[in-house]
Amino acid sequence: MVLQHPGEVGRAGGSAGSVTEVVARAVAEESVPVLFLSDSTGISAETMGNALLIQFPDVHFERASVPFIDSPEQALSIVAELDAALDSGVTPLVFCTAADTGVRTALLTARAPVIDLFDMHMQRVEQILGRTGEREAMRLHGVGDIKRYNARMAAVEFTIEHDDGQSLRALDKADVILLAPSRCGKTPTSMYLALQHGFFVANYPLVDEDLELDKLPRPVEEYRERCFGLTTTVERLSRVRSERRRGSRYASSEQCRWELRRAATIYDRHRIPVIDSSEKSVEEMATLILQQHVRQVRAAARDGQ
Amino acid sequence: MVLQHPGEVGRAGGSAGSVTEVVARAVAEESVPVLFLSDSTGISAETMGNALLIQFPDVHFERASVPFIDSPEQALSIVAELDAALDSGVTPLVFCTAADTGVRTALLTARAPVIDLFDMHMQRVEQILGRTGEREAMRLHGVGDIKRYNARMAAVEFTIEHDDGQSLRALDKADVILLAPSRCGKTPTSMYLALQHGFFVANYPLVDEDLELDKLPRPVEEYRERCFGLTTTVERLSRVRSERRRGSRYASSEQCRWELRRAATIYDRHRIPVIDSSEKSVEEMATLILQQHVRQVRAAARDGQ
Repeated sequence: MVLQHPGEVGRAGGSAGSVTEVVARAVAEESVPVLFLSDSTGISAETMGNALLIQFPDVHFERASVPFIDSPEQALSIVAELDAALDSGVTPLVFCTAADTGVRTALLTARAPVIDLFDMHMQRVEQILGRTGEREAMRLHGVGDIKRYNARMAAVEFTIEHDDGQSLRALDKADVILLAPSRCGKTPTSMYLALQHGFFVANYPLVDEDLELDKLPRPVEEYRERCFGLTTTVERLSRVRSERRRGSRYASSEQCRWELRRAATIYDRHRIPVIDSSEKSVEEMATLILQQHVRQVRAAARDGQ
Repeated sequence: MVLQHPGEVGRAGGSAGSVTEVVARAVAEESVPVLFLSDSTGISAETMGNALLIQFPDVHFERASVPFIDSPEQALSIVAELDAALDSGVTPLVFCTAADTGVRTALLTARAPVIDLFDMHMQRVEQILGRTGEREAMRLHGVGDIKRYNARMAAVEFTIEHDDGQSLRALDKADVILLAPSRCGKTPTSMYLALQHGFFVANYPLVDEDLELDKLPRPVEEYRERCFGLTTTVERLSRVRSERRRGSRYASSEQCRWELRRAATIYDRHRIPVIDSSEKSVEEMATLILQQHVRQVRAAARDGQ
């Protein structure tokens, strides 16, 4: 990892004091301090750790991530901070995904409990595969392959260009087209699908002129089978729109109800699959769309055989 | 989870045959079949599982995700597919993050080895916190809080609007401004920061007219302390650009070398932190920027005290 100004975008510098700071914040907020420790980005530690923490909806957590721990020495300085917290009577919750054995071993010397999300599972994978893993901090995932990198970049760019009906230039290249009235969650869901799954996504806002008709809007008419309709509840849509334009007709319950009802009629008439964004995260909506897409591709492959 | 056309964007329908299919594909490709099983999106299983698999760079894996497993019955039908694979002489690698005890218990009846990423860690967290977790499939993370949802949406929208210097309207509201010559990775890194961290990101392409000067481009001049410069290698930039316009001056080594050298001079002169995208994933770059940002906010808070 080359850093032209190592003092600025450095790794080690980022962690000093992180633990102490989050512990102090947690004490002030009467919450539980949580640390995600890693020798790479820490994204796995955060994702997996948060999947566990969400099971405790009544507990308030203060989180901090310490990524790129790159030496046993740095690990030991974090251990010292963790143990100081413990000595002051606070038990931090620590998740660790260090792959490097030196770093991991150093982190596990903490007297504070450290939940190692890596090692035991690594041992099982090694056993099942019948070979040993590298056990190194992995820094290069995803960039080695220029074609794959370009494909992801192209997906993000396509999706930006085709956000909110701004461009209809290459709608025929879209993998997925999201339809919905304004503020139902089209844009973040589109970007998530592009960024995480390399999908070319277009999204098209259903405005009054579209909603007055029973037909699909002309530009998307011939791509019916790639369309997904998003909906939400009247109350939620009205609240979301009010954050933007309080007291407007746009945010009124009447207008929201009319738009959602008309959209539902259009989705139904054209057998467009519908996802209710009021009770789902962006990730959940993206996963549902992905599943459906896989199923369609599979069906098309079968038909083509 | 309400689905207007349950037959279309349904959950259970998505999994039937997934295991058998990925096993067949793996056999054809002489690779190892990998399954990510979950009662929610499966994102934790994929993230954590892939963090383990990346440690085996010489093994080729065929992956499939089976999300939203919502009953022991559905789990048992997956178990039947896993065991059929085992009986045919193929050992699939199975990662599971089911939180629901009924679903998890059913999945663990498989004779094929299932790596449970959830239960043991859950037990430790429960022990440390001194209370029991809900142990339910969590479907609602991230949407309950409208303010938070709107903030993320606003970040994505700001970042789309301020992509590639298209708009300079609200540059003063940017948390981070990425500078770089074309094709150094500004756009996906910006979108990742917006989507995953709620950052307002602007990115500004350094074109020939900017690169001919030693000054920072006028529009970003007053926001120097929010700027990050991206760079890459001449060879990589030339290859990435060639994918787009083969044989062009734009893709030539000479032009790429000149642009990167001039950009480096500008970054250096204005003490702008630099990140080399040639050896990092989008996630790694985003993590470095996040760390630096946290450090700056922390320093500003100290100065303000």
